[in-house]
Amino acid sequence: MRLSEGVEWTAHCAVLMAALPPGVSLSAKRLAEFHGVPGPYLAKSLQALMRAGIVESSPGRHGGYRLARPAADITLLEVVLAVEGNEPFFRCTDIRRRGPAGGPAKAYSSTCGVAAAMWRAEEAWRSELEKTTIGSLMELVFAQVPAESLDRGAKWLTSVVITRR
Amino acid sequence: MRLSEGVEWTAHCAVLMAALPPGVSLSAKRLAEFHGVPGPYLAKSLQALMRAGIVESSPGRHGGYRLARPAADITLLEVVLAVEGNEPFFRCTDIRRRGPAGGPAKAYSSTCGVAAAMWRAEEAWRSELEKTTIGSLMELVFAQVPAESLDRGAKWLTSVVITRR
Repeated sequence: MRLSEGVEWTAHCAVLMAALPPGVSLSAKRLAEFHGVPGPYLAKSLQALMRAGIVESSPGRHGGYRLARPAADITLLEVVLAVEGNEPFFRCTDIRRRGPAGGPAKAYSSTCGVAAAMWRAEEAWRSELEKTTIGSLMELVFAQVPAESLDRGAKWLTSVVITRR
Repeated sequence: MRLSEGVEWTAHCAVLMAALPPGVSLSAKRLAEFHGVPGPYLAKSLQALMRAGIVESSPGRHGGYRLARPAADITLLEVVLAVEGNEPFFRCTDIRRRGPAGGPAKAYSSTCGVAAAMWRAEEAWRSELEKTTIGSLMELVFAQVPAESLDRGAKWLTSVVITRR
């Protein structure tokens, strides 16, 4: 079981967008360029963030994506579910009701213990991802980036926002 | 992202095996029959449980699968990982090092904050699944099964173990 690459890409895009100066947007192409990922695939994931109300797009030549809400209010869980969908990992097909010992649904008063345990684990996964916000990730990730990289990143941003956009 | 059906099947098989009288095994075919699932696919998942040391097989005409260890010592996590593999959900491709701001690996002193947050969530998922044993699930699942179903299950078991095996 593996999360799609879009999860990593969009989490980093959201972190970058959290660091943008007010009023600045970045196109899918620029976001792909900054992260060294394929533009068309990234565009699809960014559309998913837009449908989830995490980013918004400004139209026109100078348009692009930016966060739709304060970074401190957007959780990593929201980003992951926007890309991966909100389906549970575990799907219960109620196999306890099949076979020679099976019975009608109404005879079972509670959720199957196997499914309940699997869903408790998913809840723990979600709960942990909900504790991390894009705002806190932005602070952390930027604190981890070497000074030289920060400098190159800032120069690139200036060049695409002022000159190349 | 979805876990394979084999997770549900093998968890229920392990629960049933936990309830078998000492010395009794069930073939893949019988385990499939009891759970109303396709035999050839289930056989593959049972092989995965065997490779993981969760079940063992007794050879011969009357042979079959049984738990290799006490049910109270087998966690649900072990069963899930046996079927799904031990790979993390999130794969970090270190995209912070790509693009115009990227730098050499040695310039980054710590795990990327995005990956660290994703892996904390997986650890929470694993930790929750580790709290549940096949022994506790067996008690719970059997307590949930209607008396009539338990009775039919016991009759089926007697028929396959004594008569049909």
